[in-house]
Amino acid sequence: MANAHVIENLSRVVTCGAGGPLIGPAMRELGVRTGDPCVAVRDGRVAFVGARRDLPADYSNASRVDGKGRVLTPGLVDCHTHPAFVRARAEEFAMRLAGASYEEIAAQGGGILSSTRAVRGSDDTTLTAQTTRNLLRLRKHGVFVAEGKSGYGLNLKDELRQLHAIKAAGEQADMHTVRTCLAAHSLPAEFRGDDGKRAQYLRLVIDEILPAAARNGLAQRADVFCEQGVFTEGETRAVAQAAERLGLQVTIHAEQLHLTGGAAVAAQVGAVSADHLEFIDDAGARAMADAGTCAVLLPGSTYVLKMDRWADGRRLIDMGLCVALATDFNPGSSPVANPAFVMNLAVMHCGFTPEEALAAFTVNAARALRLPAGEYGAITAGSRAAFALWDVDHEREIAYYAGSNLCEGLSCPGWRS
Amino acid sequence: MANAHVIENLSRVVTCGAGGPLIGPAMRELGVRTGDPCVAVRDGRVAFVGARRDLPADYSNASRVDGKGRVLTPGLVDCHTHPAFVRARAEEFAMRLAGASYEEIAAQGGGILSSTRAVRGSDDTTLTAQTTRNLLRLRKHGVFVAEGKSGYGLNLKDELRQLHAIKAAGEQADMHTVRTCLAAHSLPAEFRGDDGKRAQYLRLVIDEILPAAARNGLAQRADVFCEQGVFTEGETRAVAQAAERLGLQVTIHAEQLHLTGGAAVAAQVGAVSADHLEFIDDAGARAMADAGTCAVLLPGSTYVLKMDRWADGRRLIDMGLCVALATDFNPGSSPVANPAFVMNLAVMHCGFTPEEALAAFTVNAARALRLPAGEYGAITAGSRAAFALWDVDHEREIAYYAGSNLCEGLSCPGWRS
Repeated sequence: MANAHVIENLSRVVTCGAGGPLIGPAMRELGVRTGDPCVAVRDGRVAFVGARRDLPADYSNASRVDGKGRVLTPGLVDCHTHPAFVRARAEEFAMRLAGASYEEIAAQGGGILSSTRAVRGSDDTTLTAQTTRNLLRLRKHGVFVAEGKSGYGLNLKDELRQLHAIKAAGEQADMHTVRTCLAAHSLPAEFRGDDGKRAQYLRLVIDEILPAAARNGLAQRADVFCEQGVFTEGETRAVAQAAERLGLQVTIHAEQLHLTGGAAVAAQVGAVSADHLEFIDDAGARAMADAGTCAVLLPGSTYVLKMDRWADGRRLIDMGLCVALATDFNPGSSPVANPAFVMNLAVMHCGFTPEEALAAFTVNAARALRLPAGEYGAITAGSRAAFALWDVDHEREIAYYAGSNLCEGLSCPGWRS
Repeated sequence: MANAHVIENLSRVVTCGAGGPLIGPAMRELGVRTGDPCVAVRDGRVAFVGARRDLPADYSNASRVDGKGRVLTPGLVDCHTHPAFVRARAEEFAMRLAGASYEEIAAQGGGILSSTRAVRGSDDTTLTAQTTRNLLRLRKHGVFVAEGKSGYGLNLKDELRQLHAIKAAGEQADMHTVRTCLAAHSLPAEFRGDDGKRAQYLRLVIDEILPAAARNGLAQRADVFCEQGVFTEGETRAVAQAAERLGLQVTIHAEQLHLTGGAAVAAQVGAVSADHLEFIDDAGARAMADAGTCAVLLPGSTYVLKMDRWADGRRLIDMGLCVALATDFNPGSSPVANPAFVMNLAVMHCGFTPEEALAAFTVNAARALRLPAGEYGAITAGSRAAFALWDVDHEREIAYYAGSNLCEGLSCPGWRS
């Protein structure tokens, strides 16, 4: 049998269910195989998961892959990242430690606008190379599927350049990307100063940037940063509705620094997710649960910004939302490329159990991206053959070795095709 | 020329000085080479550091090692670890999150005594294999020199088994180890209950375990956990003085959970370091500065234990102490195998600059272990050819990518011999 592989010598295979989202108590039931388990792969798709003694005979000549006695999970799905950046904003580290807030740094031209200047000033080769480098940084920590946002272009040309760079980088890094147009990330400097210019930028986003991003599947999604001092509830709704009309899925940066109503807007417009949610209230959470809008929590940024308030994952899980985690990997507020660290933060500060944190970075993250059930974020017949192999004794230890990378990616030829 | 290597295609070479400790403002002056720098190595030792155009002609046939355009630093020196453990204490994660303190968990037979039961119950093969695995976990994050403590044996046989396991694991993981007998880590269960038994255990440590550990260089150092409810100031002094008489260097776990005077004892007995120091006062710090006792800070454990109080690195640096950082890698209070994460914590919470954090994990850590100046923790003529190659643009970014591992180890044949 050609292009067949058997991953063996595994202590545990954590399947993360059959691919549908894990809600409420189901998040703690990850479907673990023990007793000399193996995974058989054919043409880049999982064909068998079970005890090695039950492996179908036609795999007898398949290539063997040594699992080193470790724990196998699905390859990680990072459903919120900003990888199209060309330089880290390490200088803001010192500013923040001297007491400046994220909002104060932004008001001084730092933050998102600083990354925007860098992206606009880069050539295509550099932008793609740096984006590839950033995806590979995630890949080194077990990520095979990365959502990637624009949002450092903030004009037609540079938003599209970012989306093209993410697409090309995914090919070069052998990762699956889901691309999101985040032209509504910040009001660009040249549109600041009066309400007329502000409205003009929003028209540009709605009439030109989003339609161009939607063309030929360059982006699959649109995002808006709904926050005090960024975009209002009403502006967020207008951009989201325009995106929906273009056939783009909608996601919203909501309730990160204040309660501004972004979660309710997300539910109203049928967004696939609302992300951050440190300040969400019960009404917003209930609206999201009813609408099937996923909650994507990003504690890496809470950690980096030294915020007092963490997203209350426990409450959202118990309320029955589909809860996911992501790195928010970006050059300023979350230079965190390690999902295991985010899982650790979620356990230590957001009320997750270690098992829930893993579900949130696999099957539920795939749901937040509306990927076909079972293809990504799970190990079941038909899943893409991309895995994470962990140097731990039990999956609950994945979130335990704080800030360490004990993960290796493992994929079989053809997994992306 | 045989066994000669040139590491080239580097953006920056951070030498960390000439090998002597970096004190006060010198900690921020790391000696950086730019302008197409390279490092030439002969027989496992650095022979040249400088611009590639100045490379001596006799290296024209040396093997070339591609630095991938990255930043090169000395291989990291981790001067405080507990690698001889056989299982993580992930169950304590849940207990701590439910509100139990480190001390309460210990009182219930968890903590150190839990690891002691596991080590005593392991066979030699398992203990050495697990210790090797733990050293390799550090190695994956750029560590080439690891101090390793016993302290989960707490009897003659098992303390020695741990030290032998660390020695063997160093060989297998291709790492240099410095071994420390920490028989005075906790009063073992079988000696609890009355003062007579307590005195009996201290006699056992002083009369039997330390002398056996000192024999034939099995351990080079001794350590005591000086803390309320563990060992008193007086007991610490007695063990330290016995160790000195045996020719062992002394280090002390001091002022971690309370101010108990361990730092002053360390200074009095001429200890090479006092470690933790969350609660140190100015008198203790001044005594250490005067005695040349290094301050080793371990913010990984402060993070994991969710302590309110972080060691004040800024004050200790400004007072002129030799300040180092280490992972404290252990199965319970600091399951942190990533020095870059510890550096991030040091910058975010202990007042370090990113440059100071790097000095603290290289040249100053080598000083804390009293390694020969320049051999480890620096890149200068005569240094051992073990390096860390960082996927960053500037050394200040090493501490920036929070909880991520952007490091690869790089060594040349013969570096350890």
